[in-house]
Amino acid sequence: MRTLKLTLAYDGTDFVGWQRQPNGVSVQQLVEEACAPLVNAFPAVVGAGRTDAGVHALGQVASVNLETELPALTVQRAINARLPAAIRVVDAVDAPSGFHARFHAAGKHYRYRIATAAVLSPFDRWFVWHAPEPRDVEAMRRASRVLVGRHDFASFQAAGAGVTDTVRTIHKLDVRELDAELSIDLVGDGFLRHMVRAIVGTLAEVGNGVRTPESLAGVLAARDRNAAGLTAPACGLTLMEVHY
Amino acid sequence: MRTLKLTLAYDGTDFVGWQRQPNGVSVQQLVEEACAPLVNAFPAVVGAGRTDAGVHALGQVASVNLETELPALTVQRAINARLPAAIRVVDAVDAPSGFHARFHAAGKHYRYRIATAAVLSPFDRWFVWHAPEPRDVEAMRRASRVLVGRHDFASFQAAGAGVTDTVRTIHKLDVRELDAELSIDLVGDGFLRHMVRAIVGTLAEVGNGVRTPESLAGVLAARDRNAAGLTAPACGLTLMEVHY
Repeated sequence: MRTLKLTLAYDGTDFVGWQRQPNGVSVQQLVEEACAPLVNAFPAVVGAGRTDAGVHALGQVASVNLETELPALTVQRAINARLPAAIRVVDAVDAPSGFHARFHAAGKHYRYRIATAAVLSPFDRWFVWHAPEPRDVEAMRRASRVLVGRHDFASFQAAGAGVTDTVRTIHKLDVRELDAELSIDLVGDGFLRHMVRAIVGTLAEVGNGVRTPESLAGVLAARDRNAAGLTAPACGLTLMEVHY
Repeated sequence: MRTLKLTLAYDGTDFVGWQRQPNGVSVQQLVEEACAPLVNAFPAVVGAGRTDAGVHALGQVASVNLETELPALTVQRAINARLPAAIRVVDAVDAPSGFHARFHAAGKHYRYRIATAAVLSPFDRWFVWHAPEPRDVEAMRRASRVLVGRHDFASFQAAGAGVTDTVRTIHKLDVRELDAELSIDLVGDGFLRHMVRAIVGTLAEVGNGVRTPESLAGVLAARDRNAAGLTAPACGLTLMEVHY
């Protein structure tokens, strides 16, 4: 069985997210449909991360088993020819047989962008959270340091997500400010549903003084979604890279 | 009479261009409609440049006469509140009475982006011309130097545009290459209809060897649209700044 590792970039604005849904067009569905003519079958494409509706990707990784003799570059071109321009396979390589994009992922890098300018650039409107309030970036950095490391992130999991093992490790959580934009980079071994967006929403509340950096330890300890802050909008989030 | 100078940014993808058209939504129409409630009238908004359908702006300038006592910043906010996020007034200031954005413009700066990578980023798909052929950038630079200065650009005017004074001055025409993108900056005292796109299309043909840099002098001399190259797609073009 031949297994291919696809690296995908997509503008998530017009999709219901990575995963197939009954109520709209998903990235997964379109990639599967684009693969189908290559093998006269309907192969399952497995994504490393189930990005939400409106979330973007520069480096989503997907695995797919394809019984074809075509070189990987030819497969890449054939899939791209059938995908809308909002989704691109940016790389395709042969992987060890049995490679599974989700189970074998060792970590992920997400970036969240917050535009703080009074007037939002039209070119950023689908790609940032426009939140023009003043923010104490240093307080946000102090709060982010509380979250780095191995913790139970139950307070940052979407209500009703139902995953019971909620311990994850965040390796890096950087808050940078450049011109009128905050850029929050998160690298971790895995993220619960809505976890990145709940962390960003909570850090934003630290930034405008609604909560203190020191309060974050209590938020973690509470293991209660109500203890953390709001879920930041999907459009500001991009899956940058998946580590194996 | 109070005259305001508005600086506008817009994503031109979904509009028929700056100027009002019977067959679709223009930027001008939306800005006029957004101004109307401020003065209980329908003011004429004059743009410095009539950008085509699909062409973008970071620094379009418009003039409008508004009989209101409101501070310019309040006017800016009120207009933005009524505009779609694809169009933003990024600055509004009082101008001398009688200021006319088009008649008083002394020059304009346009930028044209050509993506040369084999795979086009989904995030660039509305903002560049995707032309992944190899290009001789040095030849394009030599050709561009032929066009700098005061010339009759009749060969680069849209067929049927009908403007008879076709002499214009190009102050700057720079071709830069960064990663997998060519960026062409043009600064001039004025541009004929489709002139920037015809220049870019002609330079692109120099870049892939269809014509030589030296042939550009003959193209200018011909005063015939058929002597120059194709008209590059609108989506790669952005009006960067208007000079007064």
